[in-house]
Amino acid sequence: MKLPKGFRYAAAYAGIRKTIDDDVALILSDRLAAAAAVFTTNRVVAAPVDVARKNLRASRGHVRALLINAGNANCATRTGERVAQECVEALARAIGSKPREVLPASTGVIGVELDGDLIVGVIPKLVASLDEAKFEDAARAMMTTDTRIKIAGTKVGGPGAAFIAGMTKGSGMIHPRMATTLAFVMTDALVLPATLRSILKRAVASSYNRISVDGDTSTNDMAAVIANGASGVKPPAKAFELALTEVLESLARQIVRDGEGARKLITIDVSGAPSDGGAESIARAIANSPLVKTAIAGSDPNWGRILSAAGNAGVTFNPRRVDIDFQRVPVCRGGLAAEFQELALKAKLDQPDCSIRFAIRGTGRGHARFWTCDFTEDYIRINASYRT
Amino acid sequence: MKLPKGFRYAAAYAGIRKTIDDDVALILSDRLAAAAAVFTTNRVVAAPVDVARKNLRASRGHVRALLINAGNANCATRTGERVAQECVEALARAIGSKPREVLPASTGVIGVELDGDLIVGVIPKLVASLDEAKFEDAARAMMTTDTRIKIAGTKVGGPGAAFIAGMTKGSGMIHPRMATTLAFVMTDALVLPATLRSILKRAVASSYNRISVDGDTSTNDMAAVIANGASGVKPPAKAFELALTEVLESLARQIVRDGEGARKLITIDVSGAPSDGGAESIARAIANSPLVKTAIAGSDPNWGRILSAAGNAGVTFNPRRVDIDFQRVPVCRGGLAAEFQELALKAKLDQPDCSIRFAIRGTGRGHARFWTCDFTEDYIRINASYRT
Repeated sequence: MKLPKGFRYAAAYAGIRKTIDDDVALILSDRLAAAAAVFTTNRVVAAPVDVARKNLRASRGHVRALLINAGNANCATRTGERVAQECVEALARAIGSKPREVLPASTGVIGVELDGDLIVGVIPKLVASLDEAKFEDAARAMMTTDTRIKIAGTKVGGPGAAFIAGMTKGSGMIHPRMATTLAFVMTDALVLPATLRSILKRAVASSYNRISVDGDTSTNDMAAVIANGASGVKPPAKAFELALTEVLESLARQIVRDGEGARKLITIDVSGAPSDGGAESIARAIANSPLVKTAIAGSDPNWGRILSAAGNAGVTFNPRRVDIDFQRVPVCRGGLAAEFQELALKAKLDQPDCSIRFAIRGTGRGHARFWTCDFTEDYIRINASYRT
Repeated sequence: MKLPKGFRYAAAYAGIRKTIDDDVALILSDRLAAAAAVFTTNRVVAAPVDVARKNLRASRGHVRALLINAGNANCATRTGERVAQECVEALARAIGSKPREVLPASTGVIGVELDGDLIVGVIPKLVASLDEAKFEDAARAMMTTDTRIKIAGTKVGGPGAAFIAGMTKGSGMIHPRMATTLAFVMTDALVLPATLRSILKRAVASSYNRISVDGDTSTNDMAAVIANGASGVKPPAKAFELALTEVLESLARQIVRDGEGARKLITIDVSGAPSDGGAESIARAIANSPLVKTAIAGSDPNWGRILSAAGNAGVTFNPRRVDIDFQRVPVCRGGLAAEFQELALKAKLDQPDCSIRFAIRGTGRGHARFWTCDFTEDYIRINASYRT
């Protein structure tokens, strides 16, 4: 994967998590970069989210560095804002920037005080080890229950192109309404902060806002994009938006595929709804139904659960006009059972990629694509003992 | 449990389910009784629900019998209405009533044609075996993934009292917005249909509409109450409402305790919200969070997940004013961690009954009680292979 110019990365173990794996990541742009971010819509907001939002506003969308820790969400803590602020200031001093040009982010357990000294103490080591090639180390340091790193990249434009590279984390508590989990995208394209903001919003709406693992939205969600212009390329806004969407969609799909306990990525396509919003509501209802997700875990083409889940979406449709396919095999036509080879379809559902098509016949033109994962015993096992 | 006068019950195996257990139940009132019912709010509605609703309207709230089958929901079927109607007519002939005085109900798999002949064929046997004492047999015949029968009863008024007895089924796909699953309550009190209707609506709102197993609302939900007046007692409306609510609440709690794979009944009390509706939204968000439910399965007092789930309820509150207790032990005060004995609390959470208290300090007077269950590996196991 070709990385954008002018960014360096570092990771270190600060002692926040119990296992001795890197738990702090630093992303640095060599020059002041345009930046935009979207944040959680949860009423309960972690301190670093508040600080990042404030800094981004104060700097009018300009950023030098991102400082991320895993192992502790710094949410519902007495010292939350002070700790986040201290870390930001210590890093700003070390790299010679203003504090408002640093965005902090945290992920991990809620309600446990974060020891800021651990992060401050490791900053000299982080800064000393900054390297263009440590992109994956940074991605690894922000993992929690993730089983693998999640990165994606693409280029914008032809010869002398600009590049986009993103990293994300997340596996549980995934049901973004706006952003989700943590996602950081770097590009050396030249884009103004205001343009970046509107493009990011749209790109997130069709990627991160279309995935669900367990229907919960975290207190720490944040997706940020940083454009430092180091390539000297100023791509057309539309081309940049397409490229950014491609990267975010890839990252979002990787999250779902690595959903806690998941063995299958499920792609849901809804069409024929009264509006795109209606289609999204139906897709979301299907994606969030534990009964649908457990059926897919068992490779059971139980289309009745799909129909029933859709019926709970609060969207008006005639069940007698619904067609449902699993893996492109018709299982329901006009709201009734279609003939299909049970065993052959079960075998097709034993794949790591499953598709559900829910089409309403008629004149409705609303459609939506949504991603979710199957629901297995391992989800329970992981979550029944996460904190302790 | 003392049963109301003037009702007889029967159960038989018609061959709808694969295992040889009774799958059809009959409930008969010796005289024409006042009746009221609430039905599913799912857009996808099973045929027996349509027929029951139509009959109740045609008879202006008068019923002689309920005919219930398990093993097949008769939903999304080609022959659904015709089959339900045939069964109703056959039973009406056998007991000498009008078809509109019979309410059908079905529960089981969706999208498979129901063979009406199986039910029609077993009606003579059902009618011949009607007995006042077969209350529990009827309750058993309508079980699906239930592990035990669910019945409750009480009396209304003093000497020469009237009695109320109810039965219900349900274990998965439980997240009623209006009614849920199947619930049938018989009483020998004298109550007019219109009064019965308004009382049932309120009683369901604070019982069946306050439980959740997995967040799905079924296509076949129905709760009906039948009052045949055989006791000659006409209780005050308020006393009758209290008694009916007590029975429905007991039945609803039994459903949650027997939730698919559940080992614990969780009672959630929310107070201090801006309104009762707001409190209910918060309680519902907590009750539906897989992260909360898996934490309780693991006896993990993870209050951060409670706070985060509440933050997603769409209700405005200040996290810094939130107190949370598990099993009456303070774990969060003012949105921050409280000191508690981790091991002692874990032991307390290893009980079959768990309580969560979520209190917002201040002037808000909205409160709500909600019931849910823990989320275990067994839920997945049951649902990954239910249909096949």
